Amino acid sequence: MTTREQLPASDHNARVTAVRDVLDGRTMVLSHGTNIRWLTGFGGSLAWLVIGPERFALLTDGRYRDRAIADLDAAGLNTDVIVRATRPDLADALVATVEGPGAVLAEADHLSHAAWGSLAERFAIEPAGGLVEGLRRVKDNGEVVRMARAADIADRTLVEVAPMLFDGPTEADVRDELEYRMRRHGADGPSYDTIVASGPQHAARPHHQTARRTIEAGDTVIIDVGALIDGYHSDMTRTFVIGEPDARQHEIYTLVRESQAAGLAAVGPGVPAVDVDAACRTVFRDAGYEDWFIHGTGHGVGLDIHEEPFSSPASTSELKVGDVVTVEPGLYRDGFGGVRIEDLVSVTATGCAPFTHLSKDAPCLPSPPTT
Amino acid sequence: MTTREQLPASDHNARVTAVRDVLDGRTMVLSHGTNIRWLTGFGGSLAWLVIGPERFALLTDGRYRDRAIADLDAAGLNTDVIVRATRPDLADALVATVEGPGAVLAEADHLSHAAWGSLAERFAIEPAGGLVEGLRRVKDNGEVVRMARAADIADRTLVEVAPMLFDGPTEADVRDELEYRMRRHGADGPSYDTIVASGPQHAARPHHQTARRTIEAGDTVIIDVGALIDGYHSDMTRTFVIGEPDARQHEIYTLVRESQAAGLAAVGPGVPAVDVDAACRTVFRDAGYEDWFIHGTGHGVGLDIHEEPFSSPASTSELKVGDVVTVEPGLYRDGFGGVRIEDLVSVTATGCAPFTHLSKDAPCLPSPPTT
Repeated sequence: MTTREQLPASDHNARVTAVRDVLDGRTMVLSHGTNIRWLTGFGGSLAWLVIGPERFALLTDGRYRDRAIADLDAAGLNTDVIVRATRPDLADALVATVEGPGAVLAEADHLSHAAWGSLAERFAIEPAGGLVEGLRRVKDNGEVVRMARAADIADRTLVEVAPMLFDGPTEADVRDELEYRMRRHGADGPSYDTIVASGPQHAARPHHQTARRTIEAGDTVIIDVGALIDGYHSDMTRTFVIGEPDARQHEIYTLVRESQAAGLAAVGPGVPAVDVDAACRTVFRDAGYEDWFIHGTGHGVGLDIHEEPFSSPASTSELKVGDVVTVEPGLYRDGFGGVRIEDLVSVTATGCAPFTHLSKDAPCLPSPPTT
Repeated sequence: MTTREQLPASDHNARVTAVRDVLDGRTMVLSHGTNIRWLTGFGGSLAWLVIGPERFALLTDGRYRDRAIADLDAAGLNTDVIVRATRPDLADALVATVEGPGAVLAEADHLSHAAWGSLAERFAIEPAGGLVEGLRRVKDNGEVVRMARAADIADRTLVEVAPMLFDGPTEADVRDELEYRMRRHGADGPSYDTIVASGPQHAARPHHQTARRTIEAGDTVIIDVGALIDGYHSDMTRTFVIGEPDARQHEIYTLVRESQAAGLAAVGPGVPAVDVDAACRTVFRDAGYEDWFIHGTGHGVGLDIHEEPFSSPASTSELKVGDVVTVEPGLYRDGFGGVRIEDLVSVTATGCAPFTHLSKDAPCLPSPPTT
């Protein structure tokens, strides 16, 4: 077990001030867990956070009382922690905490219609849009260090585990080793359900659910794996061919490699996210494979594994310095399998800097052990 | 790696018929993942399901196309699978799929206010209440077998891992071994983030986030662990004392043991869930420890780890044969630590039958190895 040394702290008080600046005298009620975590450091699964001109209060239930106090103290915040045992009592306390006048902002994308309706009976309420998401999209140094650490753990773990691919394991065997060893390297856990997708059918599904299929010679194997550090995610994909690639596997791998390089080359500040998608997609279109590319090119990563900016043909956002995004084109076909290559990168003044450092030169990485 | 033998199938067509019977000619749009999984077997993270008098369609995106077709086929369902690349296109396809006339039912507790608003612009929409949750609350044989299997894996894994508690591991070390070994015994994964909460502060938090604290002599250690089989959860807690319990530890452990036995004795068909809570709570109150009990007594378990019927002072539901519920009283105090004992049981005609079979006779289980 690696002991976690002290990672650089983020300035939570500055984040609260930034939100108050946007609110400009209004009050906001937060219900989205990752927004609350970004503002307070509190990682429990049930909480409300109220921010007004004077008020700053976290409401949770008895299970989380001590943890909430400890997390807020660690974040250097002077916050009221209000604990109520039941949801109706929590709702009453929330109403008593909200400051008037004017409508209260709430998170229409992260609050159920039923819960919204209950609050709307008690006070005037309006959608906040992506107010906090907008502020937390660009990552500070404390966040970058955590994501770089998470990416490094995933890299090192995949290098360790990849050789077993050539020994006839099941997909689940490989997944189990990856998730166990990431934790032994200091991760808090996997970033998401690790994908190990092998062979003509499973590798053809971008979001395959890892199964008990035995990995065989001739398979393409897509491994999509990330680690979690203090709530921050990493995200990375590499594709292996078990044995000597055939002509089609070589062609597809080379094409995805080329498409991914084009996507990375397109990343930079001021670039519309749709252009990154187009850079990847054009390579496939020119080769006659566009209909094998059945998902978007990438997404932002942070406290959420999928967040703005998304990069797809429908994207409207523009990249900026400090965004952390994936570039992950892939080609999939039932009967063939699939190939995806994904790096996690941060947008810099001159282009992008990778968090992922694993080689992607060869269709199989590392090469099958020479016996 | 244990290979999964064939587990008994559930009759998905009968479930669809049961929903149609309640709908009585109306159409329902489902967005809640576990409700969709119960009806179709599809376990992807993004889907809509439309059930009308004639229509039965699953809508998802390209990442899940092949998996959706395979899952629905395995469930023996004759379902349209409609695939659209983007969320706006999916919404358009949804609107085209809905059958009139009359308001469409949707899941107000499991649809964001923003998404509800978008649909409400396209057709009349009404809350469905807990229509599907009500139908899936009582478990059929296929479900009981999966939950029993999951509980058995968690039991066996905890017996294997518990001896390491006395060797000075961190909480995270214990969590890592539990989650890894549950999978080696055939689980699809952990049922939830495994809780290993040790010592005077951490064990005092019912939902402690497992940390890198080293477990020491004199600690109480709460381990709350479950396994996942085909989406079905198990849930169980045992508490250990590291070394010889002191008088207070012995008193508290004995009290929780007594409270939990009283709760189990109260479980039966027709019993108000609030009575199970009261049975546990009374034992604590009589001993002067009621304010150390800072959560409810239990909850239903199935495809969701927390579902109806909940058992707390605020409960309004009544237990019935086929409910699967936890009974999990506990006592917590900063400076002391905590003790919780939790079994998963099914309600039977005469009381309840346990899924959890681990001993709870001694404050430490198993006893510290005699060296």
